[in-house]
Amino acid sequence: QTTCAQSSVTFYGRIDTAIRYSTNQNIAGDKLLELTSGGASGSRWGVKGSEDLGGGMKAVFTLENGFEPDTGKAAQSGRLFGRQAWVGLSGKLGTLTVGRHYSPVYNVEFANEPFGWANVYESGFIYDNYTGGNRWDNSLFYQYKVGPVSGSLMYGFGEQAGSNRNGNKLGGSLAYEFGQAAVSAAYQQTHDAQGVADHKVWTAGGYYPIGALKLFLSYLNHRSDLTPQKNDVWATGASYAMTPAVELYGGFYYDRQREQDGNKRTVVGMFNYKLSKRTNVYLQADYSKVDAGYASNVFDVYAFPTTKDASGAVTDFIKSRASVMAGVRHQF
Amino acid sequence: QTTCAQSSVTFYGRIDTAIRYSTNQNIAGDKLLELTSGGASGSRWGVKGSEDLGGGMKAVFTLENGFEPDTGKAAQSGRLFGRQAWVGLSGKLGTLTVGRHYSPVYNVEFANEPFGWANVYESGFIYDNYTGGNRWDNSLFYQYKVGPVSGSLMYGFGEQAGSNRNGNKLGGSLAYEFGQAAVSAAYQQTHDAQGVADHKVWTAGGYYPIGALKLFLSYLNHRSDLTPQKNDVWATGASYAMTPAVELYGGFYYDRQREQDGNKRTVVGMFNYKLSKRTNVYLQADYSKVDAGYASNVFDVYAFPTTKDASGAVTDFIKSRASVMAGVRHQF
Amino acid sequence: QTTCAQSSVTFYGRIDTAIRYSTNQNIAGDKLLELTSGGASGSRWGVKGSEDLGGGMKAVFTLENGFEPDTGKAAQSGRLFGRQAWVGLSGKLGTLTVGRHYSPVYNVEFANEPFGWANVYESGFIYDNYTGGNRWDNSLFYQYKVGPVSGSLMYGFGEQAGSNRNGNKLGGSLAYEFGQAAVSAAYQQTHDAQGVADHKVWTAGGYYPIGALKLFLSYLNHRSDLTPQKNDVWATGASYAMTPAVELYGGFYYDRQREQDGNKRTVVGMFNYKLSKRTNVYLQADYSKVDAGYASNVFDVYAFPTTKDASGAVTDFIKSRASVMAGVRHQF
Repeated sequence: QTTCAQSSVTFYGRIDTAIRYSTNQNIAGDKLLELTSGGASGSRWGVKGSEDLGGGMKAVFTLENGFEPDTGKAAQSGRLFGRQAWVGLSGKLGTLTVGRHYSPVYNVEFANEPFGWANVYESGFIYDNYTGGNRWDNSLFYQYKVGPVSGSLMYGFGEQAGSNRNGNKLGGSLAYEFGQAAVSAAYQQTHDAQGVADHKVWTAGGYYPIGALKLFLSYLNHRSDLTPQKNDVWATGASYAMTPAVELYGGFYYDRQREQDGNKRTVVGMFNYKLSKRTNVYLQADYSKVDAGYASNVFDVYAFPTTKDASGAVTDFIKSRASVMAGVRHQF
Repeated sequence: QTTCAQSSVTFYGRIDTAIRYSTNQNIAGDKLLELTSGGASGSRWGVKGSEDLGGGMKAVFTLENGFEPDTGKAAQSGRLFGRQAWVGLSGKLGTLTVGRHYSPVYNVEFANEPFGWANVYESGFIYDNYTGGNRWDNSLFYQYKVGPVSGSLMYGFGEQAGSNRNGNKLGGSLAYEFGQAAVSAAYQQTHDAQGVADHKVWTAGGYYPIGALKLFLSYLNHRSDLTPQKNDVWATGASYAMTPAVELYGGFYYDRQREQDGNKRTVVGMFNYKLSKRTNVYLQADYSKVDAGYASNVFDVYAFPTTKDASGAVTDFIKSRASVMAGVRHQF
Repeated sequence: QTTCAQSSVTFYGRIDTAIRYSTNQNIAGDKLLELTSGGASGSRWGVKGSEDLGGGMKAVFTLENGFEPDTGKAAQSGRLFGRQAWVGLSGKLGTLTVGRHYSPVYNVEFANEPFGWANVYESGFIYDNYTGGNRWDNSLFYQYKVGPVSGSLMYGFGEQAGSNRNGNKLGGSLAYEFGQAAVSAAYQQTHDAQGVADHKVWTAGGYYPIGALKLFLSYLNHRSDLTPQKNDVWATGASYAMTPAVELYGGFYYDRQREQDGNKRTVVGMFNYKLSKRTNVYLQADYSKVDAGYASNVFDVYAFPTTKDASGAVTDFIKSRASVMAGVRHQF
């Protein structure tokens, strides 16, 4: 039996893999069959703990690794604890932690989408473009909750000699719970190495359960001082617990782009079957469509393939992609 | 005490280091003294678990890291779970897992050799040349067992858009147990990125215990569409449990090469002393010899040093190597 | 509950992060505000164990990872077990372990300094320059203790074919305990890849408790066959347990350089508040000052910024740095 130097440490993990078939993987329109990681949620293992310090105060920490179960490699560019790594204190005045955290906008979006900052392909990563990274290194995170209201503030150090502005990140969130429902909003602004605000993002949304049905609505607004391009991203959908074992999910995502007019639309559906509390199998299908303006979206890190001329202008682009996935997820 | 979010997770590991002295490490014939990893078996730690899902079904997983105890670095090119990473379901219809697995030929060879796909130097890696990697990323592995007969099928996705053939891997195995003895065979074929069958390998063999003695015999056949070169590799040997604490191992390996005629012969002996079930110390010695034809073996990833002329033809080569090793292995 | 294949394995860790403000980070004298790792001690997690083999003998091992809690990355250049990785046997004749160990000089210095081979910035790393690495890969470590006297020998293989001298490392230590006090000394010599003795270091020192006060004194002597430069490093200081919860630390470090005459002086103070046995918060301040000769210290891996002319001669240099830090440390 493994013993710990001290008590109250929890070891946990999640392994999620899926076979995925998708279209239009290159400009010739070729299809791809692959084993992929994290169709329903990212694979991970971690250690977390809390220690009672008396007087209502406790020490808390989480160290969480992400990995690719199809190759055994560490995810998040090979980081050991690339998902989360923080330590701090929690008490009557709130919780203050330091380290690598999810950003405020991520935390709010995660709650207000049917797919939880969707770990689905063309559908989910629609948001990833606009945050300058879902996780902030070198950050301070303060959380406070009073009754149904909770708020947070986060600051990420830019760590540049001579400037506290260059590379820094700042954000916050506010949430209100009523019963099993909640509304929440967040704002965050990040600066690049030269101090320009490369991402100014705010989001607002909520979820509302009606019996076995749960409805989701989310809006995200992205501006950047690097470009006049503006993006408004809507997400809506629902989950439905048909039986204790069977869950259905559906979502629609719409990224409307201005100044470089364009849009991306994604629909996604998922059938989830729980073999147990810890193990489930799932089927997922999604379809996405972009127009010519969106093919020039400078923030689209998961962009569909394009061809460009010598000046960098898009001359041809993939207009849509469909994918189906069958996966298994196990938690421990 | 470490607690797990759920039960039935096992944390395990093995640390194996040895001092090794070997000859002919470069074309000048220099000797090398080193601290090395895995004289008897690769160092590792892992997490594995199974969850009963009812109805004879269970969820199973293994995440296994390999590391170098002499430097503390992750092995398998720095992968976090480079040895094994898979998850799946097991039931009456068999076991289906997805992720990174040992290949079918590896699994059979491992059983039929006295040194278990020998973790010995010039002797063991004789096989490594012919499989295109002992482990397959992005693979599906199906196993079924009925009475004394067990079989497996494995498919590794090539993950190339527009072609399911390029880079893919396919194999299977069959085994028959009678008492403590068994015979088994496996075939596998891998394709390179252009879709050429770079490795076509089959193996057959078995082991047979006679009291404290255990005899091993194994044959491996390698062909490749990349070259006319053909290799037939024989391995035979025995282990002998002299006392509950003392084990002796001996093995002979013969790689006969055609079309580029040549051969490699290796003999290896090992004395193992068990200090406990979990801890042992060992002495090992091996001697290998190659001829001129083998020095041009294009698949020999552990080739002895050679000199080549401008056309790439071998002009001089190391003809033999001897090594002795003293090591310690601890399991937890 | 996590179970181990065998008993007697301990999982442990430490997370230490601090906000640090420091001056003169570049030749323009810019200040830096950052979240940093390991203000009081390096962040780590590890697995260690011992197995009773009977007859007074046991098997022992430690695998210890270092990581950066501000980014989640593995420390020690991304090694998995970069802090320690060793396995061995312990009995009446002493303890012999193989793998990656702290060097003999490190072990002695660690005991004789108020900040424990100080994990403080400009103050602590004054030593790091002179050892060719605090940890030795590929090393054999022998320890023996009889009554109050303990000694150790360490040998690190150079692992170069044709030469056991090139790259090798050799050292040893001796310590004498009397009550809660101790004196100790160590010597070590390392060779570079060409066999030149790049670091010849010896150290001697001790600590002496007087009630709640503990006094420290340490001297380190560094010579190298690569350069006529010689360094004599003195460290002294004290810790004071003011109350069970409050600890004060103070230290003074003086690196006197000859042949390339120069010096570096550092003072450091720390206020530590224990929230529990496992969790503490701390404040730390340090100030360092170098002169022109020291700015050319070829071994100073943590050198202050300089400007150099075409010939490589220093034309301008940062003369001092001050820093303050506030941190939290949690152990499990």
